Amino acid sequence: MFNLKEYLNQKRKNIDAALNSIFENKLPKARRVINAMHYSLMAGGKRLRPILCIASAEALKRKDEDVMNAACALELIHTYSLIHDDLPAFDDDELRRGMPTCHIKFDEATAILAGDGLLTLAFEVISPKHLSNPQNALLWIEVINVIANAAGCIGMIEGQMRDSFYEGTKIDLNSLKELHFLKTGALIQASVCSGAILAEASLDEMNQLKIYAQNIGLAFQVQDDILNVEGDPKIMGKSVGTDNLRDKNTYPSIMGISESKLFAKELINEALKAIEIFDDSAEPLRRIASYIIERNV
Amino acid sequence: MFNLKEYLNQKRKNIDAALNSIFENKLPKARRVINAMHYSLMAGGKRLRPILCIASAEALKRKDEDVMNAACALELIHTYSLIHDDLPAFDDDELRRGMPTCHIKFDEATAILAGDGLLTLAFEVISPKHLSNPQNALLWIEVINVIANAAGCIGMIEGQMRDSFYEGTKIDLNSLKELHFLKTGALIQASVCSGAILAEASLDEMNQLKIYAQNIGLAFQVQDDILNVEGDPKIMGKSVGTDNLRDKNTYPSIMGISESKLFAKELINEALKAIEIFDDSAEPLRRIASYIIERNV
Repeated sequence: MFNLKEYLNQKRKNIDAALNSIFENKLPKARRVINAMHYSLMAGGKRLRPILCIASAEALKRKDEDVMNAACALELIHTYSLIHDDLPAFDDDELRRGMPTCHIKFDEATAILAGDGLLTLAFEVISPKHLSNPQNALLWIEVINVIANAAGCIGMIEGQMRDSFYEGTKIDLNSLKELHFLKTGALIQASVCSGAILAEASLDEMNQLKIYAQNIGLAFQVQDDILNVEGDPKIMGKSVGTDNLRDKNTYPSIMGISESKLFAKELINEALKAIEIFDDSAEPLRRIASYIIERNV
Repeated sequence: MFNLKEYLNQKRKNIDAALNSIFENKLPKARRVINAMHYSLMAGGKRLRPILCIASAEALKRKDEDVMNAACALELIHTYSLIHDDLPAFDDDELRRGMPTCHIKFDEATAILAGDGLLTLAFEVISPKHLSNPQNALLWIEVINVIANAAGCIGMIEGQMRDSFYEGTKIDLNSLKELHFLKTGALIQASVCSGAILAEASLDEMNQLKIYAQNIGLAFQVQDDILNVEGDPKIMGKSVGTDNLRDKNTYPSIMGISESKLFAKELINEALKAIEIFDDSAEPLRRIASYIIERNV
């Protein structure tokens, strides 16, 4: 019987070990900026993106180690985006997961550079020096392209720009969906796709996984908004009700709380339907989808 | 007879066309952040890094188009580093090349994202979708790794961090050289190496080109410092004497102005000696080396 909690814990352990080993090579030369990068990276995270990358490869019968470099790169990019998002020029947050944000723990210049450093490191990690065969090289190049595209100026960065500019203005449901696809959905999709590319998915498998990823990505954001209204601050380790205070555009504020819950449920159903073509190897992907709207943190 | 001025102009034209064509695909979706990226990229630059990449490939009998994606990526990364360097948390500069810096023209949030966007775009450009053969894929992966390493937290970013922290404190000549190798030398070396990797340089050719690059990289910085003392602000389009006012660590301040000129000359001689193994195809590399200490801008 598949135990999701055990699965997630085991994967997190493997991912954290891989992330730490990336830094081991850099640590003898450790300086302020590397410390800041490592601090934010290890400040506790769900590791959702790397786990999705691994689970996607598993659905296609590949192992963790076949995609671990890509998985790590995705977490490095996610962490960089959080560091820059917390800066005074953006959300100006002092705490993340109960710990001082990077620019509070260090300073603004260091936080900007730590973000830049993590983003650059992601592409170093994903261009591994020792590739066994040229066929793999083509797959890695495709992964680099997919991740750079998703994280870039028509993906995550555009999402961040819009988020910054929409603050204080009311937007409609479609604009909110688009914003979230750009800001978080694109990288979540790239996470699932990276695993699938390296596992040599067929075109059909890739398309179904993309639909899965788009739906869980959006559901993830809807659930985040719901938790900001109804979550338990003690369990979550952060304040709730902040979206309302900031007059932020959220699903509950646009469609109401019970409609938001229904919407999240529908999205997860769509995601599950999309991956019906896979056998039991896709069990982790299925259980992660359900977890996304059942989580309370 | 080789005409350096014509050569540089022609290469700049080719590079600018290639850079613009990268943006053409993005411009139908043009938004604030893409505009900011394009603004800084096209604000006029010597295009030294892409030209070095191309000239290095030419020394090994390859053509511009074989390395143009790498050349463009290097300029995108260089531009991102300037945008972040100009931010209030760093140099807080309002003008660059006589034009408002990115955070002045737009705002701080946009400038941070524009830098992030250019860095990410560099890796998108350098992971081209249509590769003709798998052998090339391995070379591109090597180039990605070399560039990410040079631009990263044990390269350019560490240089930027030190620059920020050394401000107001006196350092010795060795620390200054190390700072400059990290801040500008590493990416200049990666520029020369990228061209050489894609041109399938031998180990010996690669080593000689590295020595060339290290020497011209340092000479470039020494000449920059000299121009800040002796340059003509009208020709340079920026103020001079600013290093002195800021109490910045420079070669003239540590070793005096005439010693700095001698030092720059020696570095260029070393660079020229390193590439004696090449035939006339290396003429552009040779002339660029000399130009670095003869330039008045």
